Amino acid sequence: MHNLDRILNQIRDRIHEEADWGLPAQYIPELANVAPEQFAISVVTSNGQCCSAGQADRPFSIQSISKVFSLVATLGRIGEALWTRVGREPTRAAFDSIMLLETDNGRPPNPFVNAGAIVTTDALLAGREPRQALAEILGLIRTMAGRDDIYINKRVAQSEKRTAERNKALAHYLASHGNLLNDPDLTLGTYFHQCAIEMTTVQLAMSGRVLAGLDCAPPTISRTHARRTNALMMTCGHYDASGEFAFKVGLPGKSGVGGGILLIAPRRASIAIWSPGLNGYGNSQAGTRAATMLAELTGWSVF
Amino acid sequence: MHNLDRILNQIRDRIHEEADWGLPAQYIPELANVAPEQFAISVVTSNGQCCSAGQADRPFSIQSISKVFSLVATLGRIGEALWTRVGREPTRAAFDSIMLLETDNGRPPNPFVNAGAIVTTDALLAGREPRQALAEILGLIRTMAGRDDIYINKRVAQSEKRTAERNKALAHYLASHGNLLNDPDLTLGTYFHQCAIEMTTVQLAMSGRVLAGLDCAPPTISRTHARRTNALMMTCGHYDASGEFAFKVGLPGKSGVGGGILLIAPRRASIAIWSPGLNGYGNSQAGTRAATMLAELTGWSVF
Amino acid sequence: MHNLDRILNQIRDRIHEEADWGLPAQYIPELANVAPEQFAISVVTSNGQCCSAGQADRPFSIQSISKVFSLVATLGRIGEALWTRVGREPTRAAFDSIMLLETDNGRPPNPFVNAGAIVTTDALLAGREPRQALAEILGLIRTMAGRDDIYINKRVAQSEKRTAERNKALAHYLASHGNLLNDPDLTLGTYFHQCAIEMTTVQLAMSGRVLAGLDCAPPTISRTHARRTNALMMTCGHYDASGEFAFKVGLPGKSGVGGGILLIAPRRASIAIWSPGLNGYGNSQAGTRAATMLAELTGWSVF
Amino acid sequence: MHNLDRILNQIRDRIHEEADWGLPAQYIPELANVAPEQFAISVVTSNGQCCSAGQADRPFSIQSISKVFSLVATLGRIGEALWTRVGREPTRAAFDSIMLLETDNGRPPNPFVNAGAIVTTDALLAGREPRQALAEILGLIRTMAGRDDIYINKRVAQSEKRTAERNKALAHYLASHGNLLNDPDLTLGTYFHQCAIEMTTVQLAMSGRVLAGLDCAPPTISRTHARRTNALMMTCGHYDASGEFAFKVGLPGKSGVGGGILLIAPRRASIAIWSPGLNGYGNSQAGTRAATMLAELTGWSVF
Repeated sequence: MHNLDRILNQIRDRIHEEADWGLPAQYIPELANVAPEQFAISVVTSNGQCCSAGQADRPFSIQSISKVFSLVATLGRIGEALWTRVGREPTRAAFDSIMLLETDNGRPPNPFVNAGAIVTTDALLAGREPRQALAEILGLIRTMAGRDDIYINKRVAQSEKRTAERNKALAHYLASHGNLLNDPDLTLGTYFHQCAIEMTTVQLAMSGRVLAGLDCAPPTISRTHARRTNALMMTCGHYDASGEFAFKVGLPGKSGVGGGILLIAPRRASIAIWSPGLNGYGNSQAGTRAATMLAELTGWSVF
Repeated sequence: MHNLDRILNQIRDRIHEEADWGLPAQYIPELANVAPEQFAISVVTSNGQCCSAGQADRPFSIQSISKVFSLVATLGRIGEALWTRVGREPTRAAFDSIMLLETDNGRPPNPFVNAGAIVTTDALLAGREPRQALAEILGLIRTMAGRDDIYINKRVAQSEKRTAERNKALAHYLASHGNLLNDPDLTLGTYFHQCAIEMTTVQLAMSGRVLAGLDCAPPTISRTHARRTNALMMTCGHYDASGEFAFKVGLPGKSGVGGGILLIAPRRASIAIWSPGLNGYGNSQAGTRAATMLAELTGWSVF
Repeated sequence: MHNLDRILNQIRDRIHEEADWGLPAQYIPELANVAPEQFAISVVTSNGQCCSAGQADRPFSIQSISKVFSLVATLGRIGEALWTRVGREPTRAAFDSIMLLETDNGRPPNPFVNAGAIVTTDALLAGREPRQALAEILGLIRTMAGRDDIYINKRVAQSEKRTAERNKALAHYLASHGNLLNDPDLTLGTYFHQCAIEMTTVQLAMSGRVLAGLDCAPPTISRTHARRTNALMMTCGHYDASGEFAFKVGLPGKSGVGGGILLIAPRRASIAIWSPGLNGYGNSQAGTRAATMLAELTGWSVF
Repeated sequence: MHNLDRILNQIRDRIHEEADWGLPAQYIPELANVAPEQFAISVVTSNGQCCSAGQADRPFSIQSISKVFSLVATLGRIGEALWTRVGREPTRAAFDSIMLLETDNGRPPNPFVNAGAIVTTDALLAGREPRQALAEILGLIRTMAGRDDIYINKRVAQSEKRTAERNKALAHYLASHGNLLNDPDLTLGTYFHQCAIEMTTVQLAMSGRVLAGLDCAPPTISRTHARRTNALMMTCGHYDASGEFAFKVGLPGKSGVGGGILLIAPRRASIAIWSPGLNGYGNSQAGTRAATMLAELTGWSVF
C-alpha cells in the first residue's frame, strides 16, 4: 500500500510536470469554465483501502461515465432484453455520430455511444416518471460507492438541456425508428440529469469495486453482469479511441467529457482518474496519460 | 390542342388499364387513407390553355412539391446567399437521410431533400412569425397559379406534426451545426404547414408556367431563377431516382409523397400529374409512368 | 454565324484575361507536363459549320470523355442489357471512389464514374481482343466526327498503365463481385487505351453532332440513345460537381482530366472546349468557366 | 489437469450433440470441400502440459490466424513504426471491407482486417524475396510452437491466388495511396502463402504460450509486444463480431476462415479450437460456441 501511495504520487507529479492538459469540453457552458490544470487519482484495492493523489475530494461532472451505471441498472431490470434494442460492437464513429443509426435502422452499435445510452436510459425509464428512474440510478451509484453524498448538479443538467441539439436529433431519430418507448423529451430529460451527476475520484473508485469483483464490494450486481459490463468498457468505453486505450492501458475503462475515467483492474483494483482537459476524441488528455502510467507501473494490464 | 387532349386521354386510359398503382404514403395518417386508384393530368401550353384528363379538380396534398415554391420564395428574398447553407448536388441517399449531414458538417446536399428544404424554409422564416412566412409562400403560389382558392389543410399539417420524428431529428441535427436561424420547432411548424398545402393538377400546372417560361405566365420570377430551379429539379427533383427520371422522361420535375409531380417542359408547357400510390423511392408510381408516356408521345424531352 | 464567331473570340479573350487556369492532372505523367495557359473552343451548329477560337487544332487527351463514346458503342451493341450491371444515378462520391461499390455489391452508380466506365468497356469487350474493342470505339468516333485522323497516344496509355493503381483496385473489386466478364487486365488495358485517344476541339465538336441531333450529323445512333446519353451527361457528367454544372451551364456535358469538355445543346449545337488546368473536382477550370459564359451569351440552356 | 481433460471432453460432446456446424468458407475451393462436422480443442497450461479433445492432430488452414504471427514478426522487425501505416481501432466493417480505406486515405483501421494484414506483411517483406519473409514467419511460428513440422499448403495458396480478387483490389487500393512498399503482386503472393499455413490445434495452442505469458513459453517476444498483440486480438480479432466475442468469452482471440480460433488466457493458458463451419461473420460457428463454454466452465475471462 505504501508502494501504491508512492506510485500515485509519482503519477500526479509527472502529470503536473508534463503539463499537457488539453481543453475542457467547450459545448457545455458549465464545464467550459473549469480550469484545466487539475488532476486527481484514487485507487481501491481488494482489502477496501483507498489511496489517492491530487484533488481527490473535488466533485466533477461524471457525464458519460453515468452510462456505465445506467447500463448496470437496466441490465438488472430487464436483463438480456436490452440487446434487442442496442448492439455490443465498437464503432469507429464519434460518440455523437448519427450515421450508423441510419445504416442500422435505428439500432445503436453499443450502449456507450450517446444514441446507445439514450436507448438504455429509455429502457430504464419504461413509462415511469423521470425522477423515479433518476432515483434508481442515483440509488445504485450510492450503494455501489457506499456513500450517500452523491448528487445531481441541476445547473449542469439545465446547461445541457439548452445546448444539446445533437442529442435531441439522436433521440428523435431513434423515435422515428420506433426505438424509444417514452416521449423523447422525457427520455432526454432523464439522460441529461444522469450525465450531470457529480462525484469525486474517491467516490467513483469506490463505486467500481463490484465491477472489479473486489472482496470488499457490496453485493449489488452479479459477476456475469460485471464481467460483461467490463467487456463493453474494454471494446467501446473510449469511443473511437477504444482500441488505442486497450492497446496502451490494457484495462476496461469508461471516460466522460467532464474529464473523468473509471478504470477496472479485475480482481485487483478499482481506479478513478480526473483531469478536465480533453483530447481530440473527447477523453481526458492527462487522465489517459495517467492510466497508461498506472498500467505500466503496476503491471495490472489484463493482457 | 385537340391532339394534346387526345394524348392526355390516352395516357389516362392506359394508366387505368395497367392498374399499377403503388401504395399511398403510410407514415402520414391523413394520406394513408386515400384510395390509390386515382389519376389526374393537366397541361398548360404557351397560349395559356389548360388541357386535363382524370380527376383534375380534386385537391391533393402537394407535400415535397412545396419545396419548389419555398425555394423560389427564398431565392427571391435572399438570392445566392442561400447557397452558403445548402448545396446544389444530387445524392444517392434517400429524401429523409441524415447521414450526409454528418459527413458535410450540417450542410444539406440540395434544397429538395428534407434537410435542405428545412434549411430553405428556415432562411425564408428569418425571425418572422411562421404565419408570415406561410402567407408569403401561399401568396407566391396563388400569384404563380393565378388562382386564389389554394389553402393549407390544417389536419394534414397536424398529422405530420405528430408523426414526423425523422424531420425533428433533421432539424435538431441542423441546429447542432448552427445551420438553423430560428427555433427548430418554429421552422418545422412552418415546414409541416407548407407541405400540407393542397392543389388540384389544374392549379399546379398553372403555377408552373413561369418556370417553363411560357408567354402566358405572370412575371413573378426572373428567367435566371426559373432556369436554376429547373436545373435543380432535373438533377435532384426525384431524390435517389432523379437520374432514372432524367433518363426516361428528360424533363425537370419535382415529386411529393402526396402523389403529385410538377413537370416543366421549358418554353413548351407546364404539366401536373397526380396519382397517390408511391414507388419504392417515394415518387408516384402511376405518375412517373404517365410522365414517361407524355415525354414519348410529345417529344418534349429537353435532350 | 458572325455573331457566334464574335462570342467565341470574346470568351477566349476573357479566359486569357482572367488567367484562372488551375493545375493539369498530376497523376498521369504525360499530362502533368502540359502548360496550363492554353484554351480552345469549337462550336458546330445545325448547318454543319464549325466556328472556333483558340488552339482548336491542337490534339489533347480526351480521357473520361471517351466514356461517352464507349457508352454509345455499348448501348449500340447490347442495348438496355447494360443497365443490369451499372446504374443511372448521380453520386456525391468522387470519380474514382470505391465506397459505393461496397454498398451496392459491385454495381457502379452510373457509366461515367471510373468503375461504371470500366464495366461499360468490359461489356463492349465481351470476350474479344482488346484491339477489336478499341477499333470499334475508334471507328465510332471517326464516323461520328467525320474525320479519320483520330488516334490513340500509346505513350499516354502506357503512362496510365504504370500509375493507375486505383483503377486496378476498382477492376479487381468489380471482378470480386462477378461484375467483369473479361480478365481485369484485359478490360483495364482496353480502358487505358480508350482514355488515351487524342482529339482537337474541332474533331470533338464534330463528333457530338449526332448527340445534339443536328441535321448535319451522320446517322450513327438512334435519337433515343442520344437523348439518354445526354440525360446521363446532365446528371452525372461532371462527377460530384454535376449539379453545379447543370445549375450554372444548363447543358449536358462530359469532362475529362485532360482538360476537355464535350457540351451538347440539343437541336442547336455541339460544343468542345479545352483547357488543361483542373479544378478540385477534376474538371477543366477555365473550360467550366467558358461553358458558363457560352450558356449566358447564347441562351442555349435547356432550362 | 484431470479436471481440464473432463471439461474439454464435455465441450467436445456438447458440440457434437448440438450439431450446429455452420458452412465452411465457400470462396476458397480447397476449403469449401472440408466436411463441417469436425471439432478439435487443445489447451496448454502454465506447466507446459497440453490437453486436447477431438481431432487435435488434424492440420487445418490457419488463414487469418496467420495475421497474429505476421504482426508479431513485423513488430519484432520494425516496432512502433508499423503504426504510421495501420491503425489500432476496431471497425464495424467486414474483414474484407474497402470502404474505410477510402475514408481514411488508405490507412487500414487495424492489422487484423485484410487490408491491415496486407500492409503488415508488406512491411515485413520490405524489399526482400517473398520466400525470405515466408521463411521468417514460418520460422517464428515453429519457434513459438516448439515444433518443426509446420508447413504451407501450396495448393491452398494457389487456390487463393486464383480467386481472391477482393484482396487484389485492397492491395492496389493501398498502392494507390502509397501504402505498399513492394509490388502489390509480391506482397499478395506472400500474404496468400502465409494464410495457407497449416497447423493442428496442438501446434496452434503451443504457439500461443508466449502470448499468454506462460512460464513454459520459449522467450521469443517481449511481454509488452505480447500484451499489445492480445489487446488487438480482444478489440479486433473477430472482425465486426469482436465486441460480441469479448462480451461472451472475455478472452483475446483471433479467428480464421479455415475454422480455427487462437484464444489467449493471459498467465493461465493458450487455447486452440477448430471446426470448419463458419457463422455470418466468417468466424467458426462451433468454435465460437466452444470458446464461450470454455470461458464459462473455467472462469478464465480476463474481466
